[in-house]
Formats: sequence, structure tokens, C-alpha cells
Amino acid sequence: MPLTPEQEAEIAAQRREARPTLRPVAEGMERHLYTAHEVLDHGFVRVIDYMGDDGAIVQAARVSYGKGTKSVSNDEGLIRYLMRHRHTTPFEMCEVKLHVKLPIFVARQWIRHRTANVNEYSARYSILDREFYIPAPEALARQSTTNNQGREEPLGPEEAARVLEILRADAARTYDHYEEMTGKIGLARELARMNLPTNIYTQWYWKIDLHNLLHFLELRADPHAQMEIRAYAETIGRIVADWVPMTWRAFLDYRAGAVTLSRQAIDCLRRMLRGEQVTQEESGMSAREWREFMEVWGEN
Amino acid sequence: MPLTPEQEAEIAAQRREARPTLRPVAEGMERHLYTAHEVLDHGFVRVIDYMGDDGAIVQAARVSYGKGTKSVSNDEGLIRYLMRHRHTTPFEMCEVKLHVKLPIFVARQWIRHRTANVNEYSARYSILDREFYIPAPEALARQSTTNNQGREEPLGPEEAARVLEILRADAARTYDHYEEMTGKIGLARELARMNLPTNIYTQWYWKIDLHNLLHFLELRADPHAQMEIRAYAETIGRIVADWVPMTWRAFLDYRAGAVTLSRQAIDCLRRMLRGEQVTQEESGMSAREWREFMEVWGEN
Amino acid sequence: MPLTPEQEAEIAAQRREARPTLRPVAEGMERHLYTAHEVLDHGFVRVIDYMGDDGAIVQAARVSYGKGTKSVSNDEGLIRYLMRHRHTTPFEMCEVKLHVKLPIFVARQWIRHRTANVNEYSARYSILDREFYIPAPEALARQSTTNNQGREEPLGPEEAARVLEILRADAARTYDHYEEMTGKIGLARELARMNLPTNIYTQWYWKIDLHNLLHFLELRADPHAQMEIRAYAETIGRIVADWVPMTWRAFLDYRAGAVTLSRQAIDCLRRMLRGEQVTQEESGMSAREWREFMEVWGEN
Amino acid sequence: MPLTPEQEAEIAAQRREARPTLRPVAEGMERHLYTAHEVLDHGFVRVIDYMGDDGAIVQAARVSYGKGTKSVSNDEGLIRYLMRHRHTTPFEMCEVKLHVKLPIFVARQWIRHRTANVNEYSARYSILDREFYIPAPEALARQSTTNNQGREEPLGPEEAARVLEILRADAARTYDHYEEMTGKIGLARELARMNLPTNIYTQWYWKIDLHNLLHFLELRADPHAQMEIRAYAETIGRIVADWVPMTWRAFLDYRAGAVTLSRQAIDCLRRMLRGEQVTQEESGMSAREWREFMEVWGEN
Repeated sequence: MPLTPEQEAEIAAQRREARPTLRPVAEGMERHLYTAHEVLDHGFVRVIDYMGDDGAIVQAARVSYGKGTKSVSNDEGLIRYLMRHRHTTPFEMCEVKLHVKLPIFVARQWIRHRTANVNEYSARYSILDREFYIPAPEALARQSTTNNQGREEPLGPEEAARVLEILRADAARTYDHYEEMTGKIGLARELARMNLPTNIYTQWYWKIDLHNLLHFLELRADPHAQMEIRAYAETIGRIVADWVPMTWRAFLDYRAGAVTLSRQAIDCLRRMLRGEQVTQEESGMSAREWREFMEVWGEN
Repeated sequence: MPLTPEQEAEIAAQRREARPTLRPVAEGMERHLYTAHEVLDHGFVRVIDYMGDDGAIVQAARVSYGKGTKSVSNDEGLIRYLMRHRHTTPFEMCEVKLHVKLPIFVARQWIRHRTANVNEYSARYSILDREFYIPAPEALARQSTTNNQGREEPLGPEEAARVLEILRADAARTYDHYEEMTGKIGLARELARMNLPTNIYTQWYWKIDLHNLLHFLELRADPHAQMEIRAYAETIGRIVADWVPMTWRAFLDYRAGAVTLSRQAIDCLRRMLRGEQVTQEESGMSAREWREFMEVWGEN
Repeated sequence: MPLTPEQEAEIAAQRREARPTLRPVAEGMERHLYTAHEVLDHGFVRVIDYMGDDGAIVQAARVSYGKGTKSVSNDEGLIRYLMRHRHTTPFEMCEVKLHVKLPIFVARQWIRHRTANVNEYSARYSILDREFYIPAPEALARQSTTNNQGREEPLGPEEAARVLEILRADAARTYDHYEEMTGKIGLARELARMNLPTNIYTQWYWKIDLHNLLHFLELRADPHAQMEIRAYAETIGRIVADWVPMTWRAFLDYRAGAVTLSRQAIDCLRRMLRGEQVTQEESGMSAREWREFMEVWGEN
Repeated sequence: MPLTPEQEAEIAAQRREARPTLRPVAEGMERHLYTAHEVLDHGFVRVIDYMGDDGAIVQAARVSYGKGTKSVSNDEGLIRYLMRHRHTTPFEMCEVKLHVKLPIFVARQWIRHRTANVNEYSARYSILDREFYIPAPEALARQSTTNNQGREEPLGPEEAARVLEILRADAARTYDHYEEMTGKIGLARELARMNLPTNIYTQWYWKIDLHNLLHFLELRADPHAQMEIRAYAETIGRIVADWVPMTWRAFLDYRAGAVTLSRQAIDCLRRMLRGEQVTQEESGMSAREWREFMEVWGEN
């Protein structure tokens, strides 16, 4: 349960004071403002602010294309056209600011997305709280033997118990040591923090435009992403669906749910459509590519 | 007069529909929303949307520094501290979206600022209007003989009249040709546009965070900037002053109105404070540096 | 013919002085260094410097994936894997610096690619040369009636002649006026330039990493790109093919020659593979999407 | 001692094979190529590749300013002019690629500089080595009581011994657990790594242009930066001094060794030059600003 009573009260207060604005208002997003969506055991995602809605994307596109967009009959059709043809700049006209609480090892993956603004809690200035990510037992998966970055089925109960014992004991001990070093010893905070493991929680404000956010979601809500960052991406995805519903539907159809075919794959599919049998040997694909290709097209 | 009656009516309509929001509202900015601020002879700047206010900067800084910011007594003090020490990320937490109409040669300087989102009117899709920037006679300045990129005093009346005659005639003729080529000849628009001079007006939506906007204003509202882009920067500066007044005051004190001293200049000033006479020869500065230094410090 | 005898001599001199280096050397790129590849009537592309080769991409990937990359048997296989799975950061480890001479209307499209470093010739400081892009008659295409940004067949000979007459006369007249204004009138250069049309040539140094360059080429060598910028993209593409041949082959297979299928298109193709007839009405696609889909898949 | 005999042999081999190139060669940088400069107890910085030299900056500036730069008599004068007036784009024309081994808590500060290309060793794919940063006893500084992010004098010997005991024991224990979890238990590597503290070493390839590198060095070689990242910045600074010596001298004079004066500080200094006594009360500065101002100017 990530929120203290004080935080709950603060959120309630923020949600009470509606004020008039002349700006575009996305009703679906107003419902999310400030509310903490819980992620993992102590993390959360909160919308702090947003700019624009589906209409803002349409408006920006109409500035770009001028009278040329008159032929597109409606807003959703235009948004789908933009998404399909990767006309990305109108989607950059929306912006969102999130407050995220997350383990450091997740933050390290997240920060690779460079086109965003970040203000992270500084452990040089202040003390980190005693909050560590301890996975649920069913999330303790075995290393994949075929995929270097993959997980397979969960560990057995005894192995899982042993891992949890390690994680809990090391978290407790290193935090006790952190308190000792920053407390009675008086070591500089910027040094004492180095002994904390990367499953301790940090938090940040993260601000990004919608185009780059969709790119983030495409990569991080993907089944190949690590489960822990995927949990955040899926939560954010549900928020985006309420914020810009037309854009979200187009994203699912043309990006998240899409498949890219190589020149070789196009050729194979064409032959298959003509009724030919195609084998990996004559496909021009590697064994791995062929396996991925057949996963999508082989079952027909 | 850049606005048509239709545009005036559209702006009035946009300004009529206030709706409730839970987001932070900057009253000073609400007054600007959608209103066209005229710049040059046919240009304008309009605020289309904004995110955040002075409070949002403070809030982001407090997330970063945690309890460490408690010692700063008030919001304005914290903003001044951030500006002075170039802690720039909290200022990235505010964002603004502008609609700008501007001549192409100004747009070409403007676009060098890469950290922004842009949707420009496309002359591949649509026809440009017959609107050209024709400078006021007093803006027709002579080339500086000492500064390669500078202007000096205005031309004499006959020279100015000749320049205006050239600009008006060429604008009219090339636009007539543009209409002929895109009209009865039927040449592709993407080709016909190449014959138009760079004082024709274009327009775009331009979205940028406050930190990068201040950097833009520092460079483009500077006396060394070309007068035409400076006119836009000064207009935007007045809007920013209403949007985030604490930040604007700090910007004037620590950035726009500040001076950077080189190692040599620091040394010279120290000697001058001790009552020594310093000459260029022993200053370690070039003749040009020395001249710039004496412009600031020599009159005392 | 874009090069003066002085420029030819300068290039010959630059190409004479080979010096030893410990850095990776791409033999295919050394052959291009400094040589001007002519584009359009007065433009060119010259390689000024480069960093890295196919091997540098492999090396960076092996740092990232550590022993995890040992399973990929060879360099080309690894590069193809990275390209296929959009692991883009290793491609950012190569960099190229080009000297490009190009018309201003092409430069305006080009500069939208923000992730690059640019130093453009400044018409505030210096005088532009009397060089304008005048299309070949067969490039003078008619505006498409179905595609707002498209061209169709060439104009007839009389229409083409009229367009060339306009372009040549306006170029000559505006340049004469430019000389008059910057010459005997003494108008500031930063003002006089505004009267020049956008088919005048400018030049710049442009530096970009390989990942972003491939993205640029994907968009600008595409048949939907304007023919004039495509001419530059195709020239650069031939240079890249010599620089990083493995990467270039992977790019052709997985990016430039690839097709992305939406969820609806995947579903239709699956049904077609099972022998079903699919119509637009039941495809879930718009008329336009269906037409594009059938262009690729309908001929089988 | 960060390098294994295998690594030493690999570096020696890389340094043996000089090959001819037509590109600019920076002799001062060739001497550094591949050599590991040791930083902290197990870290290093190695130059893997570079593009350009002082001459490349001058060349790019001359393309920009055309004949306008002829008046600047020599290369160093031009570089100093560019640095003084913050004409930053010519410095973006040089690029460097480094191989860096560094503790994770340093990497987390470093990565905030977003304008760079990064390939980091992935602990999802591969196993991290048993190497932790354990500070030298004299680096174990006490938390500053006046500066939230500062250090003061070193701890006493007993306190230091206790801190080192904690750091060593926790490093050993958490690494033993890491081996147990990834080894006989078979937990996915992406999960097992979360238990490791942030003083474990990681490594990456880091590529950045010279302008952004100088900005990094200005912030991270500053006395306010944490000592551990400063050690890297100082090492890189010495390399840059050999690579682009003219640029480095200009950087020291106009950036690293410079001071920026606010409007209030300019006013105070002017009054002091006229012989007036100025007090904090009438200075317009806060107590903290005044203290910083007097540190620089008060001793005269």
C-alpha cells in the first residue's frame, strides 16, 4: 500500500479544487488527475498535469496540411491516417506529466528514453525511505535457457522461499546500515546511498510528449520487456486510453498490434498466397527469423 | 492587420468557453489564450495551450530535493536559487504551445532551436497566402562596416524608397507567377513554391518547455539578434512575464541581465578594485574583448 | 557543374595526405572522403569525416549484451538481429559529417530532422552566390489531383517552357536586386537576403549518427518524398552502402524494403492464406487503406 | 587494478595496427586511443574513437560565416571568439566515443546528460563481475551541516573503519547471494541483479559531441559535483586538453574559470569600483548570494 494517510489527504484536496480554464479539457484525463494508480508492491503512477487531447492533434495536423486536410471527413479518420503514415509531429503536440514511484533497477531501464524531462528525488539531498520491491512468489521466474534476456516458468516453492528470504534480509540489513551510516556515524548521504540495492524505491516527475510516450509504451508494454517495467507501461497505457481514445485505438491497430514484414517475409507470404509451399531453406530467412515468421503465419 | 474577420470570430468563440479543470491554472496566461499578438506587418503570436506555472517549478524541485528544500523559506526564493545555480530541470516541467505566423527567413533562424515540437503549414499540400514582410522604412538599416552581422543607421529616404520598390514589386511578381504556375499551368505545388522569396509568411504550431524557451529568449531577444526575430522574442517575453512572473524576474536578474566574466576579466576587475590602472596590453584580452569589457566596466 | 577549379584543387589536396591512425578505418568510405557527389544542377554531397564501421556496431552490441552475444555466430548475423529487433543504440555508435550544397526549400524539409548537428552558411555574414535550382524540363510535374502532396506526369512542352522562363527570369531579377541592395545601396545583408527565392542554393555541414541517418533515408528516399530531397537521400544511401555494407543490406531488408501490417491487415492476410475471399467492406479498413493493401497483396 | 592480462593484451594489439586515413588526425588523441586511464578503485576511461580536432571547429565556423570569418586572423583567435560568444554549433562538429567502467550510482548521475549515445552492459543478458567501489578512507567524508548536498572533513579513523567494514561485508554478501540466485537456484538474471547495491561496477560505451561534453565537464568537474563523478570528469578533461588544446584553453578561460554576475552583482561591483562601500542590505542580494559574491570579490 504505497500511500500514507497524509498523501491520501493531499490527493483528495488537489482533486477538490476545480477551476475554470479556456484550454482544451480532456474529461477522461481529469478523472485520473492526482489519483495514485498502484504498481508493484510500493510503486505508483499519478497524472500531475497534461496538455491537449485528440482534438489538439487534429488541430495541429490541419495547421500543417492546411486546406489539404479538408478531404479527410472526420477527426478519427485523420488521426488514423497520421498514425498509419507515421506523421508523428501532430502527436508531439500533447504532453503529460507523471509522478512515478519505482525501483531503481526499473528507473535505470526507463531513463534510456532520452526525449523526456525528469526530476528525480535526490539521495544526495534527502534520505530514501525503507521501501524495497520484493516480488510476488509467482513473479520469481527461472532464467530462460533459449533467450538470454528471458524468463520462463516460476521457481519451485522452496527455491522461491529462499530467494525471498535473501531479498528481505539483504534489504533490511542494508537499510539498517544506511541508517547507521547517515545517522550516528554522520557519513555524507551521497556516499551512504551507494550501499543500497537497486530494488529500493525512488520517485520522479516525468514529462513527455504523446509521440514519445507511445514509443515508450510500444517498447515497454511489449512481451519482451521485463515484467516489472511492463507493469508501469500497462498502467500508463490505460490512462492514455482515457486521455486520447481515438489515438489509442489507432495506436493499437497500427503500432502495438502491427507486424513488420521484411523483404524476405513479403516474398514468402506472396508465394504462400499463390498456394506454394515455402521452407526455411528457400525463404532467405535465418532459423530464428523463420521461427518468428511461422509463429504469426504458420497456423493458418 | 494579420487577422481576418473569420479569425477574429474564431478567437472570440474559443475565449468564450471556460471549462472546469483540476490542473494548475495560471491566471496571467488565461488572459492571453488564443489572442493574437501582432508582430511585424502580418505576423502574430498566439498562446494555444500551456502546462504549469511558477508553482509547478517549485513542486518539481521539492520532489527532487525532498526535505532538503525545506530550508528555503519561500517559493520565489527557491526559484531564484534554481535559476542562479542553473538547476534547469524544474523549469522543464512547464510547457507552452504557440501559434506563430512569421516570414520564412525568420522561421529559418528560429528552427535552429532543436529542442521543440513543430507543425508547420505545408506548401506541398496547400497554397500560401499573398502576404510578404515589407519592413517599415526606418527598419531598412545599412550594413555595419565593423560587425559582419550587424546593422547601422537607417538608409536615406531615396535609398529606402528604392528598396521598398524592389521588395514590393518582386513580391507581387513572384506571387503572380506562383498563381499562374499552380493555377492554369497546373504545376505541382511542391515545385511552384520554390520561386517565392523568403519574406513570404508561413505559420506553425511551436511547443517548447520553459527552460528551452528561456534559452531561446536569451539568444533571440538579445541586441545581437536580427531585429525581426527579436520582435517575436520580445512579444513572447511579455507573455512569459504574465505566465510565470517569479521565474521571469529571476531570468532577468540572473540570465538576460547578467554578464559572464572570463578568467582574465575577473583578474582585471580585482586589480581595478584594488585601485590599479589596467591596460589592454596587460589584461590578457584581445582588443575586441577589451572593448566589450570596457563598455560594461569602463564608465565608472 | 557545382565545383570551381579552386574547389577541385582543394579536394585533390585533401585526398593526397593520408596519415596513420589507430582508429577503425572503413576502406569503402575512405574512397568517398572529400569527393563531391553532384546532386541536382548545382548541389553536391561530400563526406568530410566519419567515425566507425560495421565492426564498431558489433563491438558496441557486444559491450551491451556481454557474453550473451556469444551465441550469435558472426558479425553480419548480429547486425541483422539488431536491425530486425530495432535495437537501435549500437547504430548510434557510428557518425558521419557531410558537406551539402542544396536549395533552401530542400534545406527546410531536411532541417526537420532535429537529431543532427548543423553549421549552415550564414547570409547575415556573407553574400550568397548566384546559383539557383532550375529543374530539368522532365522534372516539371503536374500537381496530382488525387494526392495533395503528389506529382503526376510532366507538363507539356509549352507549359514547361513557360515555367522555366518564369524561374530563370525571377532568379536573375531577384539576384540583380540582391546585388544592388547589398552593393551600391549598402542595405544590411540580413535584410537584403529576404528577397531571394527558396530555390537559391545554400550549404551546410551536417553531422549525424548512423541510426538517425537511416531514419532520415527511410523517410527521404521514399517514393512519397519530394523528388529533389530524394536525390540527396539516394546519393547518401550509395555512400552508406560503401561505408557499412552489412548494415546497409540489413536496412534494405528490414526497413526500406519492409512493410508494416496493421491488426486488420494481419487478419485479412490470414483469411486469404486460408483461401477465403476478403472484401474491403469486411476488412475493417478504410477505402484508402484497402487500396494500399491490395497494391501489395492483391496481385498474387 | 581494473585490467586483466587479457585486456592489457587486447589494448596492446589495438594500439599496434596503425592504418592510413584521409581524415583529420589529432596526434594528441592518438596517444590516448584504447589506453585505460584508471579512475577510482576499479574504474577506467578509454578513448575508443574520435572525430575531428581544433581544425574541424575552425573549418565548420568558416562554412557558417563564409568570407565573414576572414577578418579573424588565426585559428585560436576564432575558437576563442566562438567560445566567448557561445557560438556552440562548430564545437558540435567534433565527437568522441569512450569506454567507461563506473559504479552504478555514478552512472545514474551521468545518464542525466541526455544528449549522448549510450550502450551499457546489460545485466539482463549477462552476469556482472564481483567489483564494487569501496572508497579510500580519506574519501569517507562527513555530511555537511550547511549544504544539503555537500561533504565536509573526513570521518575519524574508527568511524571510517566501521563504514568500510559495512561496505565490504554487504558487497561480499550480496554478491554471494547473486551467485547463488543466478547459479544453483536458476533465477532469471534480470531479477537477481536487483539485490546488488549501487556501488557495483557497470560499463558502457558513451559517445558525445564536444559541445555537450564540455557542458558535462563544466557541471561534473565542478567542486559542487560529487567527488566520485568528478574523478571521471577530471580524467576526461585531461584527455580533451590533448585532443583539442586550443578549445580546452578557451574553455578554461571563458567557461570553467568564468563567473556570471547577476544584475545586482554588476551594480554592486560598479559601486565598489567607484569607491563606495556596499552592504548586503543594500545589495539586493539574499544572504547566500551575498556570501558567494564576497567569496569572489571581497578579498580585494
